Amino acid sequence: MRQTLRPFLEPKHIAIVGVSRTPDRPGYMIIKNLKDFGFAGEIYPVNPGGGVVLGFKIYKSIQDLPENIDLAVSMLSAGATLELLNNCESKGIKNVILVSSGFSDSGQSGRKRQNEIVKFAKQNNIRLMGPNAVGPVNTSNNLVLPFYPLESVKKGDVAFIAQSGQFCCPGMEFANSYLYFGISKSIDVGNCCDIDEADVLEYLEDDRETRIIAIYMESIRAGRRFLDAVKRVSKQKPVVIFKSGRTEDGLKTAASHTGAIAVDDKIFDAALRQAGVIRAKDLDEFLDFTKIFSYLHLPAGNRIAIVTYSGAVGSIVADVCEESGLKLAELSKDMAEEIKTTLPQSTKISNPLDCFSAGIPVNMFDAYKIPLMAFMEAQNVDIVLSCFMVNRIWAIDAKKLLNELKQLPLKPMAAWVMGDYRRVREYTKVLEEGGVPVFASPERAIRALGALWKYCTLSNKSFIDPF
Amino acid sequence: MRQTLRPFLEPKHIAIVGVSRTPDRPGYMIIKNLKDFGFAGEIYPVNPGGGVVLGFKIYKSIQDLPENIDLAVSMLSAGATLELLNNCESKGIKNVILVSSGFSDSGQSGRKRQNEIVKFAKQNNIRLMGPNAVGPVNTSNNLVLPFYPLESVKKGDVAFIAQSGQFCCPGMEFANSYLYFGISKSIDVGNCCDIDEADVLEYLEDDRETRIIAIYMESIRAGRRFLDAVKRVSKQKPVVIFKSGRTEDGLKTAASHTGAIAVDDKIFDAALRQAGVIRAKDLDEFLDFTKIFSYLHLPAGNRIAIVTYSGAVGSIVADVCEESGLKLAELSKDMAEEIKTTLPQSTKISNPLDCFSAGIPVNMFDAYKIPLMAFMEAQNVDIVLSCFMVNRIWAIDAKKLLNELKQLPLKPMAAWVMGDYRRVREYTKVLEEGGVPVFASPERAIRALGALWKYCTLSNKSFIDPF
Repeated sequence: MRQTLRPFLEPKHIAIVGVSRTPDRPGYMIIKNLKDFGFAGEIYPVNPGGGVVLGFKIYKSIQDLPENIDLAVSMLSAGATLELLNNCESKGIKNVILVSSGFSDSGQSGRKRQNEIVKFAKQNNIRLMGPNAVGPVNTSNNLVLPFYPLESVKKGDVAFIAQSGQFCCPGMEFANSYLYFGISKSIDVGNCCDIDEADVLEYLEDDRETRIIAIYMESIRAGRRFLDAVKRVSKQKPVVIFKSGRTEDGLKTAASHTGAIAVDDKIFDAALRQAGVIRAKDLDEFLDFTKIFSYLHLPAGNRIAIVTYSGAVGSIVADVCEESGLKLAELSKDMAEEIKTTLPQSTKISNPLDCFSAGIPVNMFDAYKIPLMAFMEAQNVDIVLSCFMVNRIWAIDAKKLLNELKQLPLKPMAAWVMGDYRRVREYTKVLEEGGVPVFASPERAIRALGALWKYCTLSNKSFIDPF
Repeated sequence: MRQTLRPFLEPKHIAIVGVSRTPDRPGYMIIKNLKDFGFAGEIYPVNPGGGVVLGFKIYKSIQDLPENIDLAVSMLSAGATLELLNNCESKGIKNVILVSSGFSDSGQSGRKRQNEIVKFAKQNNIRLMGPNAVGPVNTSNNLVLPFYPLESVKKGDVAFIAQSGQFCCPGMEFANSYLYFGISKSIDVGNCCDIDEADVLEYLEDDRETRIIAIYMESIRAGRRFLDAVKRVSKQKPVVIFKSGRTEDGLKTAASHTGAIAVDDKIFDAALRQAGVIRAKDLDEFLDFTKIFSYLHLPAGNRIAIVTYSGAVGSIVADVCEESGLKLAELSKDMAEEIKTTLPQSTKISNPLDCFSAGIPVNMFDAYKIPLMAFMEAQNVDIVLSCFMVNRIWAIDAKKLLNELKQLPLKPMAAWVMGDYRRVREYTKVLEEGGVPVFASPERAIRALGALWKYCTLSNKSFIDPF
């Protein structure tokens, strides 16, 4: 059972049916991606016209292919799919990805067409991924099957599962380049006519490259099986789910996209919570929550300490702590004394701690470093958030700061950076390369840290040191 | 009454008391900013040491200054403030900005000190801004009074009022550089010991440079007066308010920041709604809502049409329309026919409209342009959202698209762009320079458009053509 996904993600010999020799056409891009990203297996393009594409011989028919094909990807139109499956059957190809739309996403007649191909596939032991799906990405073997003009793919520990190519193509590029987290696998299950999220979860459960699973879904095909799978998997790896179709309008739109079927959102929500899943309410949360699991290990508790350069930012974050399930850590007298001996006596020791006025007479580096170090060492602090400003004068040396923190106990720390966005980007890069994830607003940082803690309570886990 | 703020924002002769000749010290930066940004008035630095700073003669005392000073900015410590006010009184200086903290932000003794200076100022008809406030920015006369190392300030139609320098310094730089909206005035009211938001609102009501007012606050000093002012002003100019101190922890932190006093958040919220104010629930909304008012005129109704490249994005945005007060526009049969004649017959005409599969056989430009033009012209569409993907092949020419749309009726349109973030940034720049505001997520675009419509319902206004 758990082997279902293997030929889809670890194929050795792939047939691409319906290729094009015209640059930038989807049937050309799919070959170009496999070639440019350096796919480790063999590629067999198929098109009745024959010839050569990007150095690969084009086979005129499936019949002409060698006998060892373990995966076929169909770029053919919906109407040509049944014949394609017939040809695959004759050739003994048992795994097929269907890229075209025009099935359950396409009204009554499309739904009928989908039922026909599912019936045929079942009778002939053919497993289908899609239809209406771009192919998967696997960064372990450089399998990049989407026909989308991806320019780079960053390897990492996040697996995306989506009923949508949006998350697996431009969305993945955005996550890679802007949010700066990487991908182990990205799998568009499309209309889920056969293979669905439950199958993918079973595969990812054992995938050593995947530490976090992020799922975008519009409907649940086999509710019980999905919930069983997600419940089991989420005990080992955080699962973040973002589901659209919460409202009537959303559902109507989802139904026309992948043929989604109504699920009562309250029931779905309760089931997910029981299954130990972290649910994201919007795209920002989906990407933020995924990112934080990718960067940080779990905290030992929910007591947070915050260093900031602004009293206002302190009030703003304090407001969202409670609703995110976090508690402002109470600072011990000893710690306050310790900080007071090195910072100006007028420094107000509180949590959140505004270190700006202490920084002016001393220097900003010490004003950040001293409380941060104290928080990282404190017994009664489990999580740290650091809010930085960047400018020509007071932006502290982030690399040097991270170096100092290295000596200390491992404690999850996130950051937020404010100022001219070019400086923010540079600063973010240094922090994230040093293992501190940066979020786009202080509240979003808190909500993400809250998700980290929520996973501890849902899964009865805490403080897993991944190193 | 409305004249209160004039000397603070339109001074001709400013004394800066407590300057420094050491580069990068706050008392140096304040002079440097005034000089570098090209302040239109005269600058009189004061420090007992005398000498010259950045080419300006330093006066040894307030007594030595000429007689025409209309504003003094004090960089002195809290303890030196009463004496400073005495000196201002002797010299006939009636308007003073107090930068230092150490007043109501600083416990019992600080609160006592604040009461003393307020009493003295009142007896002597001196108006105070602050304490615990960076000075204001006015882009009309290049008055840049904060001592923060601002690198650039973008002129625009948004006035920031904040009980915090964060919003007026790094926050303003972020809004200018990343969100790409500009500032007319930025006013940190600090602890509001005398001048408060109501005074500032009265000034901004008549300020022709200000079209939108964005307020960050932690407490209300004089509730009735503030609500009266905001109610009157919000009828003419959208007022967006973000208030922290909603929760107990937030309030505790705000109290220690500016000496904020508890306000029942439900009552505050209801009062704001009655006053026609748009309330933001977090920093993202605060900046997004402000931005959309800066870019777009008001819609004639709440019927939205959405063009996207992804069925999933369609479902995601459809979910948030209702909760944002927007309705998916019903497309007329005529419009569907019109689109069908130019795009492939298989194109599904729906709202949201996923134009990706139509674009593959035709071309992405037409696949976007045709429905967008139809939506912009349609009688039953009031608002448009366009979701773009950017990549090497299918990113459509945004400049060309904006050019085509120029011919059409003026209708508020926002956008969202997804892909590698460097491409996203470039694309965003083109759209925003063409007057289409871009938001960081599709849901955030919808929420901002919802705020635009909410202002219509609160203020009984719609479709104001500002051009």
